[in-house]
Order: sequence, then structure tokens, then C-alpha cells
Amino acid sequence: KVIWTVLVTVLGFASSLPVGDDSLCTAEELAKYKIIFTGKWSQIAFPKQYPLYRPPAQWSSLLGVTHSSDYSMWKKNEYASNGVRDFAEKGEAWALMKEIEEAGEKIQSVHGIFSAPAISSGTGQTSTELEAHPRHPLVSFVVRIVPSPDWFVGIDSLNLCEGDHWMEEVSVDLFPYDAGTDSGFTFSSPNFATIPQDTVTEITCSSPSHPANSFYYPKLKILPPIAQVTMVKIKKSQLGLSAPFINLPAKSNEIIDSVS
Amino acid sequence: KVIWTVLVTVLGFASSLPVGDDSLCTAEELAKYKIIFTGKWSQIAFPKQYPLYRPPAQWSSLLGVTHSSDYSMWKKNEYASNGVRDFAEKGEAWALMKEIEEAGEKIQSVHGIFSAPAISSGTGQTSTELEAHPRHPLVSFVVRIVPSPDWFVGIDSLNLCEGDHWMEEVSVDLFPYDAGTDSGFTFSSPNFATIPQDTVTEITCSSPSHPANSFYYPKLKILPPIAQVTMVKIKKSQLGLSAPFINLPAKSNEIIDSVS
Repeated sequence: KVIWTVLVTVLGFASSLPVGDDSLCTAEELAKYKIIFTGKWSQIAFPKQYPLYRPPAQWSSLLGVTHSSDYSMWKKNEYASNGVRDFAEKGEAWALMKEIEEAGEKIQSVHGIFSAPAISSGTGQTSTELEAHPRHPLVSFVVRIVPSPDWFVGIDSLNLCEGDHWMEEVSVDLFPYDAGTDSGFTFSSPNFATIPQDTVTEITCSSPSHPANSFYYPKLKILPPIAQVTMVKIKKSQLGLSAPFINLPAKSNEIIDSVS
Repeated sequence: KVIWTVLVTVLGFASSLPVGDDSLCTAEELAKYKIIFTGKWSQIAFPKQYPLYRPPAQWSSLLGVTHSSDYSMWKKNEYASNGVRDFAEKGEAWALMKEIEEAGEKIQSVHGIFSAPAISSGTGQTSTELEAHPRHPLVSFVVRIVPSPDWFVGIDSLNLCEGDHWMEEVSVDLFPYDAGTDSGFTFSSPNFATIPQDTVTEITCSSPSHPANSFYYPKLKILPPIAQVTMVKIKKSQLGLSAPFINLPAKSNEIIDSVS
């Protein structure tokens, strides 16, 4: 269900897009990207059980990593790590940061970690920078859906490298996932551990197939994207002093209004 | 009330410590630091009105910046910017990130922005990296106290440069501040804008001098630190692959338990 929208790429390479395979990256240098996360979780798009109070719909901090194919932060249909469980259930990042650090030390599979501030509403934006390396050209991240039992959105092993160069810009629609660790059915379900733990599954408008599920919209074919992420390569002329800044829109809501 | 604890510094320079004056930094290179934020907001240390539910005591994302003395993120006894107000009241980082970006573009007073994930309890840790530049050796950051009307902890213009070299390690105890934009008196006060806006003030055990204030402990001389931050210079040998990682403790609570 993830839709890859490549905004700018080199002609003829579009078909070799994200496969999580980093073996062919012959780009010579580090690449810096601005990453902008946009929440699209509005009451209009997702009216069912939309959380208005204590807490209202919002997004956790974003926690991400650039890495090689020897590391995986999370993967659909596989079991979530303890770190991903803590993050998806509580927004607690420490265990996941520790897992990433260990992967970096033990098997040199990690280049760097990055995070962006939380968003205090369902629609809004946050951003930060990340750095990729030819041997670590893959990007993964997670953002917890708040409130929820253990639901999150994210990217798993998106390859920013295309052969001998880095992608200029990539934009991806995001859909909700269930970490498989808490059996809650709705945004505000009480904690109830899933034992034995289930695998990470995508939540769709028809699965879990139960009317109580907060994302169950039987009349829809697919859910609208609940979020979007865009990564833009930072040009070298923009590096150095004041380097991290690509123009942000004046107000995040102006962007949201125009696309939703 | 901020206590500067310099763990490792060069002999004889201790007295020239943080003054927010960046004019004398003749260090030649960029410096990278690991920054570790530790929440010490426990029910034992702060029993009065300690928030247990919806939401329980916790910390927002950390948002920080390295800059020159031409920029100020926030300052005691001065008015908070709109960005700091949004962050202190709601944990919403966008406006503050935008302000920092503009300061970087217009007056070249900013080197870089950094953020660390939120902490889902009053005691716990989070961490990230920051980069300082000889012309931008000052560090400022804010972390919102959740729940609260507009209270935060942070650092204002800590100078990481000491003459011709960078500090190896610095640790600072943190105490609560009121952003002066919301007149709530307790952690869970409803929103009530302060008009006209007040300046940023430190909250102590005796000020605001009213028994309803959540931090009013008339028997104490000073509050215990509600948080702590440590910055450790990353050695060059640790740069490159897996560079961002200095050993984190296995569990954040192990640290907390041993110091609180």
C-alpha cells in the first residue's frame, strides 16, 4: 500500500527504486537530506473515533536511522523489536536508540541516528536532517500515532542511492501499522499485551476486519494516507554555515490546508 | 539558580565559563557533542500534585540550536518569542524551528538545529548530537514540562568554547521556568492566556508565592533539580562510521535510580 512518489529522479532509473538493496551504491560522498514529515490525520479524513481530548490526535517524536541492509529497524510481517515495541506503545525512544547504537557498534550496519520533534496535532509538520553514506544508504524511521495501542507510521529501508548518485527528492505516502504487541482495537483502548506477540501488520480500511477497529471504513477501497514524508537532498552550496536550512513554509497549517 | 558543574575542563579556565560571549573562540574546527538529557521529575522529589494520569508526568521533545551571541532562543526576564510560547504551551516545534531558520538565513547567527525524542515519564533519558562552530559556539535548548501551562526547562547560550579549544564535558542541573504566556498555576490548569504577556521567569519553591503553585514547597530552600543535561565532546577517532555513538547505559532507569 505504500505509494512511492518520486518527484525528481534520473530518467531511466525509476524502475530500480526502493528495494532495500544497498549493494550497488557507488556514489562517492556522504549525502545530506532534509526530511519533512507531514501529518494528515484530520477529523475530516478519519472521522471515526477521531481523538479530540486527553490526548487529542497527535504524533510522537520521529526517530530514524540511516543504515545498510544488515540492519532492520522494523519490517512488515516480522516481529517488532523491544525498542520498536516501547516506541510504538509509549513513544519511549531509549531502548530503540540503544538497539541502533548496538547495531552500529557490533556490525557497523548503522551510519547515523536522527530525530524530529513531536507534532501536537493530527495535521502539522516536523522536520530534521539526516546523513546517508554509500555503504549505509537506507533510511528507516518510525512515528507513533498518539493516542493508540501500538500503532505507528514509518519507512522501512528506503534506498536513497541510485547507482552512482543520490536521489534528489523523494516523497512517500504513509499508512498505519500495528506493532503486534498490544491488543487494543481503538485509539483509546486500555493497554492489553498481545501474548504471544504478533508480527507487524498494516492496518487497512478492512483489516482488522471488525467494526470496532478505529480504521475500519467498509465503504472505502483504501484509507487516505494518514501522513507523508519528503526527503530533499541538501545541495553543497547550502552546506556550511546555516546549512541545515531549506525554506520551511511559514505555517505548517498552510501546507496542510492545501493538500488535504 | 543554575549550577554549573564542569566535570572536565582545562585547569585555570574554570572561571571563564559560560558567559554567552562567543567573541573569544579561536578553536579552529567544528566540534561534535553528544547531549544527554535526564529527567529527574519523580514523585518522590516532587510529591505535590505529581501528575499520574492523562497525561502522566513526562517530557516533550528537546529542541535546540547552536548559535552566536546575535541569536537568543530564550532568556530569563525577557519576553518569550511566539515560537517558544507555542513550544512551552503545546510542545509544538514548528514556529520555533522557523524562527531559528530565519535567524540562520538573515543574520547568519545560527549554525545548526538539533532535537531529541520525547521521554514518556518524568524520569528517563533522551539524547542526540549537536555540532558547534567557532563562530557559533553557544548552545540553547528547551524541553517542555508535560503536563503544565507553559513551563519548561532549558539552557540559554552555554558557551562550549574556551579560548582556543572546546570543552570536553559539561553537566548542568536544570530548574523549571515559566514562559509567561499562560496564567495556569498548576500542572493541569486549563489554558488561560496571560495578557499582557509576562516575561520568562524561574519557578522556585517560593515563587510564585502562592500555596496553589505546583512547585510551592515552603519548607525547602531550593527545589531539587528537575532535570539535568550533559554534553560530551565526541572524539575524532569516534567520527565517521558509527560516529554518533557514545555508550548509552543499558536502561535509562538504572541511571535515574542511582542518582535520585
